[in-house]
Amino acid sequence: MKISRPKLARLLLPATLIFISTISTIYAQKKPNIIVFLVDDMGWQDTSLPFWTQKTPLNERYHTPNMERLAKDGVKFTNAYATPVCTPSRVSMLTGMNAAHHKVTNWTSPQYNVSSDNDDEQFAAASWNYTGLSPKPGIPNAIYATPYPQLLKDAGYFTIHVGKAHWASVGTPGANPYNLGFMVNIAGHAAGHPQSYFSEDYYGNKPGKNTMQSVPDLEEYYGKGTFLTEALTQEALKTLDGPIKNKQPFYLNLAHYAVHDPIQADPRFYQKYIDKGLDPQEAKYATLLEGMDKSLGDVMDYLKAKQVAQNTIIIFMSDNGGLSLAPPRGGSAHTQNLPLKAGKGSVNEGGIREPMIVKWPGVVKPGTTANQYVIIEDFFPTILEMAGIKNYKTIQELDGKSMLPILKQVNYTDNERALIWHTPNKWISKDGPGINYKSAIRKGDWKLIYHMRDGIKDLYNLKTDIGELQNKAAENPEKVKELSALLSAQLRKWDAPMPIVKSTGKPVVLPDQTGI
Amino acid sequence: MKISRPKLARLLLPATLIFISTISTIYAQKKPNIIVFLVDDMGWQDTSLPFWTQKTPLNERYHTPNMERLAKDGVKFTNAYATPVCTPSRVSMLTGMNAAHHKVTNWTSPQYNVSSDNDDEQFAAASWNYTGLSPKPGIPNAIYATPYPQLLKDAGYFTIHVGKAHWASVGTPGANPYNLGFMVNIAGHAAGHPQSYFSEDYYGNKPGKNTMQSVPDLEEYYGKGTFLTEALTQEALKTLDGPIKNKQPFYLNLAHYAVHDPIQADPRFYQKYIDKGLDPQEAKYATLLEGMDKSLGDVMDYLKAKQVAQNTIIIFMSDNGGLSLAPPRGGSAHTQNLPLKAGKGSVNEGGIREPMIVKWPGVVKPGTTANQYVIIEDFFPTILEMAGIKNYKTIQELDGKSMLPILKQVNYTDNERALIWHTPNKWISKDGPGINYKSAIRKGDWKLIYHMRDGIKDLYNLKTDIGELQNKAAENPEKVKELSALLSAQLRKWDAPMPIVKSTGKPVVLPDQTGI
Repeated sequence: MKISRPKLARLLLPATLIFISTISTIYAQKKPNIIVFLVDDMGWQDTSLPFWTQKTPLNERYHTPNMERLAKDGVKFTNAYATPVCTPSRVSMLTGMNAAHHKVTNWTSPQYNVSSDNDDEQFAAASWNYTGLSPKPGIPNAIYATPYPQLLKDAGYFTIHVGKAHWASVGTPGANPYNLGFMVNIAGHAAGHPQSYFSEDYYGNKPGKNTMQSVPDLEEYYGKGTFLTEALTQEALKTLDGPIKNKQPFYLNLAHYAVHDPIQADPRFYQKYIDKGLDPQEAKYATLLEGMDKSLGDVMDYLKAKQVAQNTIIIFMSDNGGLSLAPPRGGSAHTQNLPLKAGKGSVNEGGIREPMIVKWPGVVKPGTTANQYVIIEDFFPTILEMAGIKNYKTIQELDGKSMLPILKQVNYTDNERALIWHTPNKWISKDGPGINYKSAIRKGDWKLIYHMRDGIKDLYNLKTDIGELQNKAAENPEKVKELSALLSAQLRKWDAPMPIVKSTGKPVVLPDQTGI
Repeated sequence: MKISRPKLARLLLPATLIFISTISTIYAQKKPNIIVFLVDDMGWQDTSLPFWTQKTPLNERYHTPNMERLAKDGVKFTNAYATPVCTPSRVSMLTGMNAAHHKVTNWTSPQYNVSSDNDDEQFAAASWNYTGLSPKPGIPNAIYATPYPQLLKDAGYFTIHVGKAHWASVGTPGANPYNLGFMVNIAGHAAGHPQSYFSEDYYGNKPGKNTMQSVPDLEEYYGKGTFLTEALTQEALKTLDGPIKNKQPFYLNLAHYAVHDPIQADPRFYQKYIDKGLDPQEAKYATLLEGMDKSLGDVMDYLKAKQVAQNTIIIFMSDNGGLSLAPPRGGSAHTQNLPLKAGKGSVNEGGIREPMIVKWPGVVKPGTTANQYVIIEDFFPTILEMAGIKNYKTIQELDGKSMLPILKQVNYTDNERALIWHTPNKWISKDGPGINYKSAIRKGDWKLIYHMRDGIKDLYNLKTDIGELQNKAAENPEKVKELSALLSAQLRKWDAPMPIVKSTGKPVVLPDQTGI
């Protein structure tokens, strides 16, 4: 008797179902869902969750109950770092490379072939990758690299980007998240901030009023009173229905435009901050934070309702420090991240230290704290290891280190590792603390800052001086020498871009060549 | 010895792999990929592929080699119908309902709560669903229904929309393809045409120049010289990489903005039509068609290169007849679809008869022709049956019929079925042939047109008079009565919207109540 294929299948099914279900269970366990919840321009102190050894006035000011809830379920990183501005962080995250290595050391203009650097009397511009990230070769002034969402997609993940992208300029492949391995993109493009958070403004799409910062894809919400953060959250959650129903593991990059300026009030939360006595501008800023925090809560509630919370990792992160320019911020300049020094754009702690939390049910011990320092390029190997993806090939050489040892054992310590920041750029027209033409290195508790304008090096002990107020360089020449050498060797190895001294036509020397 | 689960899996794998692969092959066969390649405003004669019994001058004028190639691989439908304008067709397709039933009988304005109907001296507007389709209840002036992409998604399909959406107004859920069951949306929103096909115009997104018709999502191509049709094709093919790699069946709705006006020249094809002697406007129109046809070829080439062509169904269709208003078309008005009468907006054949082709390897006999009449609402049950989805639940009652009997046997004939068109609207300010305030019914070869303004009914025999030039009503009173009764009964059952006679304040009577 000849058995047809469907018949054969029916005959075999009862015998094989047990094996199949065993195998699929094992594979399912290997593929957790992963959400990176990325906030824009959020400072380390912009939360009611204390990341320092003590609760600060800023922790008292802000209200982020869902971050507190997430921290109870996971591990809080007190020494997590990004770069001073957004595109370098986003490129480091997606490529696993340090900014000095991928050379996207400042934010990318949405306009093609336009450098965002300001003009300077002393220096001509460094040769940095001002076009951003490119997944294809041959794009001028771009870093050609393999983004990890592509590897996740190749491994069967349903990959989603929602919100701010800002990986490359308009007219290049990297401007489009579809080219970076994302299967879904909502509202992500070449711009680094929204024209408006208000649905009444159509998020910047009112006829005849558009700019490069008009937020795409949200026409459903125009005029409905839906704040941008809320619209992005609702859209993000919609995208998860499909993969959850299909039992396909997903990776969601929920990258809020909040809390980047324009600092506009999320009306759901405004009055209470005014009642608290905040000046209107800072009250608005606080609402951007609380709206973002509500989004985090909505995501957690959704995962629970869909019964996938136990198999979903959430990584909370910001891309750089809180903005400390005033205006647009209220108060005095560079006080907005206290006890940290300065803010966005600076290699001081206020510009680079980030509120980071990881929830990973079954792996990370709930309610714990990790003090090991980590940096944004660590996301690449970490996320792929979380997804159980091994032996992957990338165009670029990775600089990041997997955080799995820390996640599995929060007391894990490595004081030999060196982290590096590098800004051979003029981010704003007037220099500020740690802002414009700086490099920095941290190893253990020590941090060295290299000032390119005058060759001076500062040395701080972050353990005893988190505010970087006491320069210990004079007392510790050996430590300065050690860190200068380490920083220089690495910058040399990466062929890091350096500004050109106009008077000589030569690049600024590396910190080990200053002779001081 | 205790065997760990991964070890168990490894031990069982060799023994079960054969069974698993057999089963997955069988299931894979049950879930073909499906592509609906939907063109906008393309007429039945806008192609070098003849859909009539003879090759016409228009078939000689246009150059669509990939439609010819698709027809060689599949079945050509000579009597496929849509509705006279785009939104009704798109809503019929997604809901399986006749336009008189879903009541979206004219195009939807992108602006919320704005009817696209023109004012009229004789009639006040019918109560039609000018907001469009809604997947959620409670939206005023919208048809609440279950769209089939949602059912495909629920059944494990990766569902993608690329191009023109135009299902509902801004500010309502139906404006957003994500709410209609699509997991990916590129460039689809509430607008019915592009502001510009040119990348040099940023497809209508030049800062300060945007309108509701600015095409979203294509910033990558700004200023690159990529014609809109080409950009959409490249984006669509990108979205297929993921599901093909993951072996997930996909549904792609590739809905080109072409060949809707603005009639702009696709520069890749322009000169040859000028050289042929076409006037510039008609030469531009011909390039829109050929660019669309190249897209179809690119899709076929891609499927072949990815080795999924044999498991992918392609359905080629247009949403209404070719525009026959001049200007913007060249030549004399209503000659652009000859031998068919009139064009877009008309219930005459020029407004509703469409070039339709279905390729389904292994099911549809290649190079065949089907003469059975079908209509756009048939897509709903057809596509779900193609996907092997049964016993699905929908909010709405379906009017469409599955085309599977025809696809399996192209000679299938049903002359008892009646098709209905219903336009209780004033589409353009001046009436034209079959345009404004008309209903029509086809049964077998007979077609009756009901003119609401004066109650007159025309009767045509499409077999002998495809141009609807010889009104046979006077000679066939019984046929007129039969079709009037049938049309009226159906409109009554659906509670179809009717215009209001201003002088009486009462709705226009149904065709069986005219007394003539």
